Amino acid sequence: MARRVKRSEKTGLPPGTLIHIGERRSEKTRLRLFDYNESQLLEKDLGGVEEAFPFRDTASVTWINVDGLQETATIEQLGKHFGLHPLVLEDIVNTEQRPKVEDFETYIYVVLKMLYRDPQGEIEAEQVSLILGNNFVLSFQEGGGDAFESIRERLRKNKGMLRKLGADYLLYGLIDAIVDNYFGVLESFGEVTDSLEEDVLVSPTTETLSTIKTLKSELLFLRRSIWPMREVVSGLRNSESTLVKANTRVYFQDIYDHVIQVMDGVDNSREILSDLLDIYLSSVSNRLNEVIKVLTIIATIFIPLTFIAGVYGMNFDFMPELHWHWGYFIVLGIMATAAINLLLFFRRKKWI
Amino acid sequence: MARRVKRSEKTGLPPGTLIHIGERRSEKTRLRLFDYNESQLLEKDLGGVEEAFPFRDTASVTWINVDGLQETATIEQLGKHFGLHPLVLEDIVNTEQRPKVEDFETYIYVVLKMLYRDPQGEIEAEQVSLILGNNFVLSFQEGGGDAFESIRERLRKNKGMLRKLGADYLLYGLIDAIVDNYFGVLESFGEVTDSLEEDVLVSPTTETLSTIKTLKSELLFLRRSIWPMREVVSGLRNSESTLVKANTRVYFQDIYDHVIQVMDGVDNSREILSDLLDIYLSSVSNRLNEVIKVLTIIATIFIPLTFIAGVYGMNFDFMPELHWHWGYFIVLGIMATAAINLLLFFRRKKWI
Amino acid sequence: MARRVKRSEKTGLPPGTLIHIGERRSEKTRLRLFDYNESQLLEKDLGGVEEAFPFRDTASVTWINVDGLQETATIEQLGKHFGLHPLVLEDIVNTEQRPKVEDFETYIYVVLKMLYRDPQGEIEAEQVSLILGNNFVLSFQEGGGDAFESIRERLRKNKGMLRKLGADYLLYGLIDAIVDNYFGVLESFGEVTDSLEEDVLVSPTTETLSTIKTLKSELLFLRRSIWPMREVVSGLRNSESTLVKANTRVYFQDIYDHVIQVMDGVDNSREILSDLLDIYLSSVSNRLNEVIKVLTIIATIFIPLTFIAGVYGMNFDFMPELHWHWGYFIVLGIMATAAINLLLFFRRKKWI
Amino acid sequence: MARRVKRSEKTGLPPGTLIHIGERRSEKTRLRLFDYNESQLLEKDLGGVEEAFPFRDTASVTWINVDGLQETATIEQLGKHFGLHPLVLEDIVNTEQRPKVEDFETYIYVVLKMLYRDPQGEIEAEQVSLILGNNFVLSFQEGGGDAFESIRERLRKNKGMLRKLGADYLLYGLIDAIVDNYFGVLESFGEVTDSLEEDVLVSPTTETLSTIKTLKSELLFLRRSIWPMREVVSGLRNSESTLVKANTRVYFQDIYDHVIQVMDGVDNSREILSDLLDIYLSSVSNRLNEVIKVLTIIATIFIPLTFIAGVYGMNFDFMPELHWHWGYFIVLGIMATAAINLLLFFRRKKWI
Amino acid sequence: MARRVKRSEKTGLPPGTLIHIGERRSEKTRLRLFDYNESQLLEKDLGGVEEAFPFRDTASVTWINVDGLQETATIEQLGKHFGLHPLVLEDIVNTEQRPKVEDFETYIYVVLKMLYRDPQGEIEAEQVSLILGNNFVLSFQEGGGDAFESIRERLRKNKGMLRKLGADYLLYGLIDAIVDNYFGVLESFGEVTDSLEEDVLVSPTTETLSTIKTLKSELLFLRRSIWPMREVVSGLRNSESTLVKANTRVYFQDIYDHVIQVMDGVDNSREILSDLLDIYLSSVSNRLNEVIKVLTIIATIFIPLTFIAGVYGMNFDFMPELHWHWGYFIVLGIMATAAINLLLFFRRKKWI
Repeated sequence: MARRVKRSEKTGLPPGTLIHIGERRSEKTRLRLFDYNESQLLEKDLGGVEEAFPFRDTASVTWINVDGLQETATIEQLGKHFGLHPLVLEDIVNTEQRPKVEDFETYIYVVLKMLYRDPQGEIEAEQVSLILGNNFVLSFQEGGGDAFESIRERLRKNKGMLRKLGADYLLYGLIDAIVDNYFGVLESFGEVTDSLEEDVLVSPTTETLSTIKTLKSELLFLRRSIWPMREVVSGLRNSESTLVKANTRVYFQDIYDHVIQVMDGVDNSREILSDLLDIYLSSVSNRLNEVIKVLTIIATIFIPLTFIAGVYGMNFDFMPELHWHWGYFIVLGIMATAAINLLLFFRRKKWI
Repeated sequence: MARRVKRSEKTGLPPGTLIHIGERRSEKTRLRLFDYNESQLLEKDLGGVEEAFPFRDTASVTWINVDGLQETATIEQLGKHFGLHPLVLEDIVNTEQRPKVEDFETYIYVVLKMLYRDPQGEIEAEQVSLILGNNFVLSFQEGGGDAFESIRERLRKNKGMLRKLGADYLLYGLIDAIVDNYFGVLESFGEVTDSLEEDVLVSPTTETLSTIKTLKSELLFLRRSIWPMREVVSGLRNSESTLVKANTRVYFQDIYDHVIQVMDGVDNSREILSDLLDIYLSSVSNRLNEVIKVLTIIATIFIPLTFIAGVYGMNFDFMPELHWHWGYFIVLGIMATAAINLLLFFRRKKWI
Repeated sequence: MARRVKRSEKTGLPPGTLIHIGERRSEKTRLRLFDYNESQLLEKDLGGVEEAFPFRDTASVTWINVDGLQETATIEQLGKHFGLHPLVLEDIVNTEQRPKVEDFETYIYVVLKMLYRDPQGEIEAEQVSLILGNNFVLSFQEGGGDAFESIRERLRKNKGMLRKLGADYLLYGLIDAIVDNYFGVLESFGEVTDSLEEDVLVSPTTETLSTIKTLKSELLFLRRSIWPMREVVSGLRNSESTLVKANTRVYFQDIYDHVIQVMDGVDNSREILSDLLDIYLSSVSNRLNEVIKVLTIIATIFIPLTFIAGVYGMNFDFMPELHWHWGYFIVLGIMATAAINLLLFFRRKKWI
Repeated sequence: MARRVKRSEKTGLPPGTLIHIGERRSEKTRLRLFDYNESQLLEKDLGGVEEAFPFRDTASVTWINVDGLQETATIEQLGKHFGLHPLVLEDIVNTEQRPKVEDFETYIYVVLKMLYRDPQGEIEAEQVSLILGNNFVLSFQEGGGDAFESIRERLRKNKGMLRKLGADYLLYGLIDAIVDNYFGVLESFGEVTDSLEEDVLVSPTTETLSTIKTLKSELLFLRRSIWPMREVVSGLRNSESTLVKANTRVYFQDIYDHVIQVMDGVDNSREILSDLLDIYLSSVSNRLNEVIKVLTIIATIFIPLTFIAGVYGMNFDFMPELHWHWGYFIVLGIMATAAINLLLFFRRKKWI
Repeated sequence: MARRVKRSEKTGLPPGTLIHIGERRSEKTRLRLFDYNESQLLEKDLGGVEEAFPFRDTASVTWINVDGLQETATIEQLGKHFGLHPLVLEDIVNTEQRPKVEDFETYIYVVLKMLYRDPQGEIEAEQVSLILGNNFVLSFQEGGGDAFESIRERLRKNKGMLRKLGADYLLYGLIDAIVDNYFGVLESFGEVTDSLEEDVLVSPTTETLSTIKTLKSELLFLRRSIWPMREVVSGLRNSESTLVKANTRVYFQDIYDHVIQVMDGVDNSREILSDLLDIYLSSVSNRLNEVIKVLTIIATIFIPLTFIAGVYGMNFDFMPELHWHWGYFIVLGIMATAAINLLLFFRRKKWI
């Protein structure tokens, strides 16, 4: 979870200077091209960026996926050929953008966050930039994970409508794949909270508290990453651009509903955690009460008895009770009676 | 209360693939048809979906109720014949939609949540999908409960305006039946909170806390299920579709008022529970105070007395008081006086 | 304070069925008629609803007040003659409506809540329905209280503008009378909170807490009853209906200001109560601190002294101090010095 | 701080009845007139309201200031001559209005609150009503304080633009004078909170809590009095009335900025107080912890020692240690060792 | 952090009076001029304000930077020559403005806050005023810090687009430089919170609490300074003024994104601090629990044992146990058994 904004390295540089900001997730930048229409499909790993250029103006749909953002020169070259604004290129390599959609008339620029748990169980957010142009889609990933394999599979096997419809439907498919991922991340919370619920009631420790806090801040991170997606998706749905065709819009409405569903799920989990926190606090304070009750019961029973014992330990010359034959046993009896009465009193108070 | 979103089973499938997502509430899908006008009524259980097809274009109002969503093939067939969009069919069988209304020009698609307490006392939310077309209404239920019997009865007995007005009024009737159900669920809370109120004051246990928490999260679940209904109903009321006639709109306004009433009731119950929670916490802390007071009173009275006894238990050779004839009784008197004064002090402090 | 929504009795009945829902406040329905213009006034108790019919179309202003909503037949008859929609009649007898205004072109329907304290000191909310038609006003009250006597008096004595202006001004007068009542209810809180303030500081008990809670929930009830009034009144002020004349609008603005003033007062009282609650809690915890301090002071002083006494109560053969002539008094002196030093220590810590 | 709404005295009276509601701040109503243009200035105390009438229609700017609102007859007369609506007059003498601006075409009515600390240090809010007409301004004050002396001075000395511009600029000047006053009131908080900050850390008492609460509710009162000023001033700035000239609007923008500044300052102070409250609570609970720690340390050290002493105070016939020559000193040594170890344990725990 | 509004020194002065309000950060006012186009650059320190006048109407872009706001006469003269409104000049020298943008048709006035940590580590906010006119930009700084050196460098070295584009792009550059600064300030928080996190868990002191509070209020100060920047930048982006050219607007969108990023970072840090505060409080209360547990364990073990010792210290004539040969050792054995059982009981309760 990269929670801290670090942008100061760029301070003072003129805008449009391409510097990769963010974690370095892959060493090399890798380009993969799909060029397809309903009847044909070309899949190809590109050696250099120039190999992509001829596909820009073909009638078939072209999808170029860029994995890894270190080689800014490659990205700059690609951007120049496809007519992207310098600021767009800057945003692509600076992976601390918020999700957003921007319409540049000849193309639409979309920034998304792909979310997944890394092997250590930490939530990672990777920036995915998508460019929808006339008959082409460019996608830029940081290279740590990949959410698009299912799309490639559907392209190769010609499943569904993907090969029948245009570049805007491909854009929809890519975004949908990313949003589908969110559900998986969200479900991982359900399992953790279930096990927490027992801990909280049975043996609340500071560690429990810390886990609850971590989960809460992860959910907040999720929320903040997903929240702007609503605007992005509704921006695409209501876009006035001719790049998004009318019959694709209903699909963006569908993604919109999914985003709302995820948000609902996130809010739901947050409430469950808030409840757990309350129960944790109440549970801790209950244990304190129990401790104090034990102290009070013991002290209340024995302090008076000790006092009585103290009285008959005094060394006065004239203490008649000391010389009674059964004095000792009478005192023991009185002590026992007092103790039993106190125990009954505590029982009546429901302390024991 | 199905509180967790589970959608990952669908991850990677192309949109429009019909997979039933949600609890499996009934084994079989059952179709029931009503075809009526003011003078005639036909009620029929359909053996196969094809039996429904001829009714689509009759001038009389046709209502087909589908119970159980497992047989996706049947639903797909029905959907195709009545011209429904694949995404609508997907939403019908995926029972994790939020309430919404969508206008597809030739028909209007409405998603609702029917709420009821199951035999275990848990709140269940079932998705009800309604399609309003030209002279027909399709309704899809999960099959766990049924809220429409009162409508069937009114159709059979020709009570009220139902048979006199068109399909939009039937839609109104169905939605109204669902909203009426909410009031019942809401009233079930009143009874529980009444009994809680006593518990909280008399014998607050961790169980009480847990019940309050459960009720609160149930109410939140209710709220979230009902909240979007406002938009749904006002969407229908203000709809520009010709499928909803002008004189039916005032009835949707009426439902709208009912939804607001339920929301008010829910918020009301939530506040009562918040108050109970506060009183619970204050009650628990009062009991702690009481325990500590008992400890303090006992310790404060007996510790000084024990000290005095200790003094006269010392074995010094020269301790003149020990040899006074009435020494013992004088000391006992001093002890009694001290104890009485401390008790008076506590009484003045209102501790006892 | 009827805080719980009970509507389930109606579940399943067709809309427009007149059933009185709410508390039964009066046994009989009573009709009273005023018919007036600037020069003449007719006041009459009506034996039957038919007696009211001829007044509908007179040029003079007609005000029919209906007290008690049990006799739904009477209300239905009246409603039919004056052309009211069945849903309006249903809302009139179902006294759980929120305040609202609805424009039916030939008449305007207004629902209000009249608030007052009943003899037991509980806040009661009664629904008042007003119909403004062309030259007539119908008012429907539940019959428990009456807020309109001052209006009747002004009509009889021809005070102010009431007789000079039309039915819309009468409507204004009736609403103004109800809003004026709110101020009285609000002031009743001031007196209670003043007396609470002392309790909270001097002798905070669980009862105090419970009173604060009750007042808070009463204020919330008030707030919820009055809040929608803003929309009602501004709805009338900005109404496009010709039934509300231009020169009456400024008066509705005046009521609007009053409603805002009441809301401010309610919010004010709520804050005072929140403050009282905070002080209550702080006061309770202060008392606990005081108790614990007493315990600590007593224990800290006497436990060491008792230890010293214990030491010289040991029975070792060889304990030289025991045989010192002034041993006893030296030990007593040491004890006194220790106690005094501890007391000074506590004083420096500002504990005593 | 007049925090309670008292309006019930008016209940039942017809609207437009002039009754002074609010504190009686001055015994007499005093009228002062300024009539000026760039070259001439007339300042005059008016004996009777009729003396003001001739100035209404002069080309020079006329400012009539009314101090004290008891003599409603005078105000009614003035209002009638200057063509004010009866409801405006009612609002002028009922000093419980919220700040607002109302455009009556031939004049603009502005209600403001002037704030100042009275000699007892309490915050007072006085209602100031301003009427901007064609070439005249009427101002109505309650008579407890006066904020306009600086304006009079500038008129007399012909400083700034006041004499050069029209009545709308005078209105601006008067409002600006009132808003300037707010800064003074706000600064008075800074001084109090500074001294509180020390109290809270060094010696938190219930009194400290009560002071914080008072300051918080005073700030709330301030906020509520100033908040509506934003709408008032932006209402004037964007007014479509010809009474406010185009080149005056930029000045209202300036006041608007000042109001926002004050609001920021108020919110700032409120946060400082919230922080103080948190620190107070934390400070109180720290002191409790300290008290309990002292108790625990004392008890933990001496209770075991006392037990040991008790053991050797037993009177068994056969207790070999008692007869060891160095027995007593060995036991004393063991006790000292135990005490020192416990002290080291507490030091390691950072308790002492 | 100048958190308190001090404006009362100005109370009563006519608007447009130039008085420098704010901290006096520099003794002298210093003017520096840049005049450039793509091919030429003139950099010059101005001796007097008149030297700047000839540059106003040149075709090249002129940037005059004013450092230090004490010499109000200089600023007034400059303002007059460049046609600035008196209220603008007043706002420039009164450094307590909120960030805002105002369009005066012939020029645009922008107020910003430059943020930096001073040598003592306190956050300072300096007001920067910018005037964008036709081919010129005026900038006014308080003189404590300087954020524009990178811009000057880029001008001198002709890096980026700065020399190629007009005055509006220079304005963009200046604002961007200030926003870039925010990132540095924000990052300084990350370091402090990291070290706090350990303190809170290991050794929470009142000082820790106070540091958390200080950081929180600094972040609030940051938030409040930056928040209005959103409106400022979006105001410039959407400005209808011809002074901002179409192709510059996309750059303002870029700044807008940066401002949002900073806001996100600030909110993020605030949540981390809130979490730290919660953990601090929980940590403090855990330590209290631990203290009380120690007390209870010690007291519960030794108080009963002391009682037993007390019993056999009594001086009754007839106490048979005292004369048993092994009596002493039997009692010691009973005591040890009791202690061990209690320890096992505490272990089972997970207290030790």
